[in-house]
Amino acid sequence: MSTLSLFNTLSRSKQVFTPLNPDRVGLYVCGPTVYGDAHLGHARPATTFDVLFRYLEESGYKVRYVRNITDVGHLESDADEGEDKIAKKAVLDQVEPMEIVQRYTDRYHKNMDQLNVRKPSIEPRASGHIIEQQNMVRQILEAGYAYESNGSVYFDVDKYNQSFAYGKLSGRKLEDLLSTTRELEGQKEKKNPFDFALWKKASPEHLMHWPSEWSEGFPGWHLECSAMSAKYLGEEFDIHGGGMDLLFPHHECEIAQSQIANGREAVKYWVHNNMITINGQKMGKSLGNFITLDQLFEGDHELLDQSYSPMTIRFFILQAHYRSTLDFSNDALKAAEKGLNKLLKAWETLQGIKASSHSTIQVDDLEQSCESAMNDDLNTPILIAHLFEGVIWINLMSTEKEFLTEKDLETLKNLFDKYIFRVLGLLSESEGNLSDTHTPALIDLLLSLRQEAKKNKDFAMADQIRNQLSDMGIVIKDGKEGSTWEINQ
Amino acid sequence: MSTLSLFNTLSRSKQVFTPLNPDRVGLYVCGPTVYGDAHLGHARPATTFDVLFRYLEESGYKVRYVRNITDVGHLESDADEGEDKIAKKAVLDQVEPMEIVQRYTDRYHKNMDQLNVRKPSIEPRASGHIIEQQNMVRQILEAGYAYESNGSVYFDVDKYNQSFAYGKLSGRKLEDLLSTTRELEGQKEKKNPFDFALWKKASPEHLMHWPSEWSEGFPGWHLECSAMSAKYLGEEFDIHGGGMDLLFPHHECEIAQSQIANGREAVKYWVHNNMITINGQKMGKSLGNFITLDQLFEGDHELLDQSYSPMTIRFFILQAHYRSTLDFSNDALKAAEKGLNKLLKAWETLQGIKASSHSTIQVDDLEQSCESAMNDDLNTPILIAHLFEGVIWINLMSTEKEFLTEKDLETLKNLFDKYIFRVLGLLSESEGNLSDTHTPALIDLLLSLRQEAKKNKDFAMADQIRNQLSDMGIVIKDGKEGSTWEINQ
Repeated sequence: MSTLSLFNTLSRSKQVFTPLNPDRVGLYVCGPTVYGDAHLGHARPATTFDVLFRYLEESGYKVRYVRNITDVGHLESDADEGEDKIAKKAVLDQVEPMEIVQRYTDRYHKNMDQLNVRKPSIEPRASGHIIEQQNMVRQILEAGYAYESNGSVYFDVDKYNQSFAYGKLSGRKLEDLLSTTRELEGQKEKKNPFDFALWKKASPEHLMHWPSEWSEGFPGWHLECSAMSAKYLGEEFDIHGGGMDLLFPHHECEIAQSQIANGREAVKYWVHNNMITINGQKMGKSLGNFITLDQLFEGDHELLDQSYSPMTIRFFILQAHYRSTLDFSNDALKAAEKGLNKLLKAWETLQGIKASSHSTIQVDDLEQSCESAMNDDLNTPILIAHLFEGVIWINLMSTEKEFLTEKDLETLKNLFDKYIFRVLGLLSESEGNLSDTHTPALIDLLLSLRQEAKKNKDFAMADQIRNQLSDMGIVIKDGKEGSTWEINQ
Repeated sequence: MSTLSLFNTLSRSKQVFTPLNPDRVGLYVCGPTVYGDAHLGHARPATTFDVLFRYLEESGYKVRYVRNITDVGHLESDADEGEDKIAKKAVLDQVEPMEIVQRYTDRYHKNMDQLNVRKPSIEPRASGHIIEQQNMVRQILEAGYAYESNGSVYFDVDKYNQSFAYGKLSGRKLEDLLSTTRELEGQKEKKNPFDFALWKKASPEHLMHWPSEWSEGFPGWHLECSAMSAKYLGEEFDIHGGGMDLLFPHHECEIAQSQIANGREAVKYWVHNNMITINGQKMGKSLGNFITLDQLFEGDHELLDQSYSPMTIRFFILQAHYRSTLDFSNDALKAAEKGLNKLLKAWETLQGIKASSHSTIQVDDLEQSCESAMNDDLNTPILIAHLFEGVIWINLMSTEKEFLTEKDLETLKNLFDKYIFRVLGLLSESEGNLSDTHTPALIDLLLSLRQEAKKNKDFAMADQIRNQLSDMGIVIKDGKEGSTWEINQ
């Protein structure tokens, strides 16, 4: 087991990670609201916590990773239509929120697959856990920390704050909040403007609603994460992740809900990734710099000079520490693209390097450095810097200026394999850019083996590879700049 | 709009399809139970109703296609453990049904993507609609057609049969059923052995359960489809599809439930695909002929001579009419592979054919024939036969023995494009067909090269092969009897 340290937002310090149950980790991360296409703001937390998930598993833990889908949306029917008209419409003629949810969930999954973000162990939907959320409302009502008002139920923040510290995660104080709260919809029903809804009565045009003893309505947004994390990870669990934008009020409210419903603190480590900017600006639809992942991958936005592959985006995100802000620009993305290519090229070069009788480089030191970087609050930029030290070695070895023994060479290969592919979750060039088929990468591998065999004058093997490929209808063409292939059908 | 006819299982006749709402179609199909890998038995209904979905849209309808995920399973905790022990276990140490559900749902989606089965408009989960199912139990109880017994609720089939015809879909008679019903679990709670559960009280070791006024329990299997189809398509909707194995009791029970809860017949057209056999036998785990889709695609089963690409499987399924039984054998699959290649090759040849000043072939007749085939209860084998008439023409045109004007050539191209790709949902060679067929052979070649390298003590090369495969997600496992491989997803 590693001695991983994580920056805990709650304690505002790096802490050694110690799981609640030996060898197992419960990880909960706030997933997307599926009412629109995934954009850069989705790619960062998904990638950050994917790396945490991968690194925990690499370190020997069995991880249950829960990432939710927020599908209880606030979709309303056409404002022109009265309640009666809606009721009279055929079901098929009505907007169906679940159809929109399905479309964007499918698109989100596609984007995550492109970014090589592993699927979570469980991906629960808010709409699939209404009963659990209603139970939590009841628990909080029974404990006396919520009140019903006009069919809605609100959490009593003021009362909570008398015994517990509301604001302890975000460092906000209730009195400061009070002075800055504006009058918003539903405020008249509340005792205090900072009280938040656990259950909302649905207005007639509101399309998603379920029966309850309080009203036909829907759960407040903060509730789903408290209810679903408790169900799948337990009332107390190890790590809760999410973007920093969720810190307040979302995560603050989660803490309060879980504290009252379960009678204890739910989360041991709160981990937040920082935000992204685009050319130094906040991303926003009104600012014209709102770029979806599809647009990035296809180069289909006026701010983009070119398209950027999913692996370039992933590498770019990991080149910054997750707690730093990250600024997207064409220059920065092009630099990331170059860096990634250099790294992957070195990996390929490494495969062809021959062992020597002695080593001129300390491989073990590099391994130690990589591990230390990851254990230091997932410091992926430092890890990548260390990997680039390895790249320099590889290039020197390829011109026989440095040497490694067979054992050390093996160590270096394993190290690169582990950190580039398994921990950072990058894909080799051929995999990441072509479709999800393995054929091109496999053929390329065979061609490089054949090239090597020729270099070693092992012509029997070179011919064997060519002939067997030819039997499959794969024709090799040798040219001046290497071999190409073609599939005949 | 087309004049599509569909064979309605309910009327036992082909009927002209007329939607309930102009221009819109509501389509519900029973999806998978996600407690295991998808196999041939999943590929057939998925492909059949995908073609119906596509053809309806091609014909100008706006279709809402709902295909459910049955995830309310009967997973129980380890039989050795008493209720107390389970309660004391940390949540993370317990088997979590949703983790299993997630794994197999993800794998099912991957397989469906491989088969180029389009995603449905909505894919609701049974576990996400407990409230809707409980409401339906209440409606049926209130109507007097169900009774509570020991915390469970059963549908009163005998009473139903007095006013409605239980068995009208499957053509079974209640008195016949009575004589053949065996004594099964829960029978003592029932008035009659053919009564079916709407709500089941959960035994202590049962892992999925929700609170209700009857018991902590779970909905009966038949209920989810009635509740979810009503929610998303309306109490009355156009088409309900599924495999013939679901006709009785599942669909029969759906009819009864919906009739009582909604006070009317829910489904206008019942459409059932026939079953598959393997070398003439029923498929079954005990018979050793149970082949998953992954095994088919990878050629990884002792009954398989080779791997078959997803498009070969899809084409093979569509070469038979959906209401015929379909027998899988290596010979039949190889024939399908050849036929598909011939068709796709002709499509490529067609792109290079030059227009002439006159036409020697009646393209409009072919178009008419294709449409008639599809309108005749989705007769895909006849459609494919017509497409092969086109293949003959194309080959004659390529040697300048037949000719088409520019306009007719355009018509032929549009026709091929529509039926091959959009209606039958096949993918062109480069998109879907060739890659996966080569993957297993390529990996096998690499493994044999690695074996040879090891024999020659060239361990660097052996490791190189293993590592590079591993980067592609292809894991080699060395065993006593040689190496095997597995593709991680």
